[in-house]
Amino acid sequence: MREDARIGVVGATGAVGPVAVELLRERGYTNVRAFASARSAGKMVEGIVIEEATPETLVDLDVCLFSVGTDLSRELVPVAVRAGAVAVDKSSAFRLQDGVPLVVPEVNGERAADHDGIVANPNCCTIPLAMVLKPLHDAAGLARARVSTYQSRSGAGIERMDQLRATPPAEAHIDMDWDFDGVDFEEEAKLRAETRKILELPELPISVTCVRVPVLVGHTEAVWVETKERLSVDDATHVLSEALGLRVEAVPQPRDAVGIDDVLVGRIRQDETTENGLVLFLACDNLRKGAALNAIQIAKLLLERRTVAA
Amino acid sequence: MREDARIGVVGATGAVGPVAVELLRERGYTNVRAFASARSAGKMVEGIVIEEATPETLVDLDVCLFSVGTDLSRELVPVAVRAGAVAVDKSSAFRLQDGVPLVVPEVNGERAADHDGIVANPNCCTIPLAMVLKPLHDAAGLARARVSTYQSRSGAGIERMDQLRATPPAEAHIDMDWDFDGVDFEEEAKLRAETRKILELPELPISVTCVRVPVLVGHTEAVWVETKERLSVDDATHVLSEALGLRVEAVPQPRDAVGIDDVLVGRIRQDETTENGLVLFLACDNLRKGAALNAIQIAKLLLERRTVAA
Repeated sequence: MREDARIGVVGATGAVGPVAVELLRERGYTNVRAFASARSAGKMVEGIVIEEATPETLVDLDVCLFSVGTDLSRELVPVAVRAGAVAVDKSSAFRLQDGVPLVVPEVNGERAADHDGIVANPNCCTIPLAMVLKPLHDAAGLARARVSTYQSRSGAGIERMDQLRATPPAEAHIDMDWDFDGVDFEEEAKLRAETRKILELPELPISVTCVRVPVLVGHTEAVWVETKERLSVDDATHVLSEALGLRVEAVPQPRDAVGIDDVLVGRIRQDETTENGLVLFLACDNLRKGAALNAIQIAKLLLERRTVAA
Repeated sequence: MREDARIGVVGATGAVGPVAVELLRERGYTNVRAFASARSAGKMVEGIVIEEATPETLVDLDVCLFSVGTDLSRELVPVAVRAGAVAVDKSSAFRLQDGVPLVVPEVNGERAADHDGIVANPNCCTIPLAMVLKPLHDAAGLARARVSTYQSRSGAGIERMDQLRATPPAEAHIDMDWDFDGVDFEEEAKLRAETRKILELPELPISVTCVRVPVLVGHTEAVWVETKERLSVDDATHVLSEALGLRVEAVPQPRDAVGIDDVLVGRIRQDETTENGLVLFLACDNLRKGAALNAIQIAKLLLERRTVAA
């Protein structure tokens, strides 16, 4: 992979964009451009002058990482693709679209090449969940999963981070502020549908409860898994500790997951309420592996496989 | 019930004690005494001068509510009982002891009378959970339950509340700081064993994951329930809305549960991963119904049934 590949980061003033620019710099990429709205054009991020994202500027890019809202992605992603870039899009705009690969490199990296200009970056809770479910599925076959999330404010964008910073701790509460279809929250439907698509298990039964907690960064999830064949705690621990991108810890304290690349998984116990059940807990830096890092890993796959110009 | 019953509150400077004194005053009890350690003796709580809790002072009481640590309960509860009071103890010291009723008045209030001087007040997560599980069990028979908790700092005592108040929001994290037996946290084992005892279902399969969130007051729980007979969402909603002490809300925002007596339950959905499954969410003021209010309701039962002197 050429470190001088031309990489754009759109959404450079959001929660995820600056992390993406930082991680690209750390990895030695020299040809990184940052984009945001007209309001932020001219500001700096990691020593790069931010450009306004327009059809005129989103050109001459090999890969363009989008971390903006769904509406803006729908508008700007096709612009960048028409101009020759492969877009790695973090919004939910294209994730479930046929022909758009939805990729977690450790889980289904080989799908990244099957794109038509757009590769989608999954929801920040889907990424660590798929990473944990995949090795268990390969070892024993997934029968069903139940998940409750503890999602941080940064998953909802930079305004919600600022809002939490300004809230006295005595007034901070958990909340469930997602769009609601009358049964599930949109977030819950996403987590289910995306996990099914990534694992290529379109019928996998998954029940999800999503909750936002007053934490700035770091998503965690309590997961109950039932497998078709019995998997002992020792075997599950072994399987997970061998999996790429996971680190097994007895009690994965979520604060330990923040600032690192690995997803922490632990508290692996038998779910004694059923025959082939396991219960576990995972923690993930939602801005890194849950967002920016996963996008960069996708970009790397695309550049290495020369499915883009670089 | 005589409003001049002689009621003691031990632990008057903790997280729960002041709430108990306040609720007793609101309910018109005129003969309330407050106790704490020597360090706090002479301070005031709700206009009452705090006495040191000693064998000499814990006398002339009809009912004595204890909200102190397990070690202190083991020491002081027998003292108050020997002096003639019935003790309602919030610690885990006696909860699972044979002959000690473990009581949630709406669930098994009739058990309160079977005491030998001590009635135990369940864990702050057990109380709302038992209140939700009982009507579902009566309607359709419980097969198993899975629970993940979002527990506030006040459940861990007043020091942890002060610690959170002093933590900048950017540094607040969820944590799992319970004693650990190598498999479950002690908190998880409590929740399982206490729920089984209260529901009188000693074999009920329950799997629990307990998590502490950076919230001052208000516990919430995500609950998956499987019943022996099928219960539709409508039927479950009806059954829960008829149950004493519960209030059904579409999306029970936990902040709405703080400061009120009812337990909020909602997000009642079919758990599509299994045949007779439901998933729901509950929210409870852990200092009120999860602690002080439940103790006062037990005291009221004891005084009404004249199993104590008053």
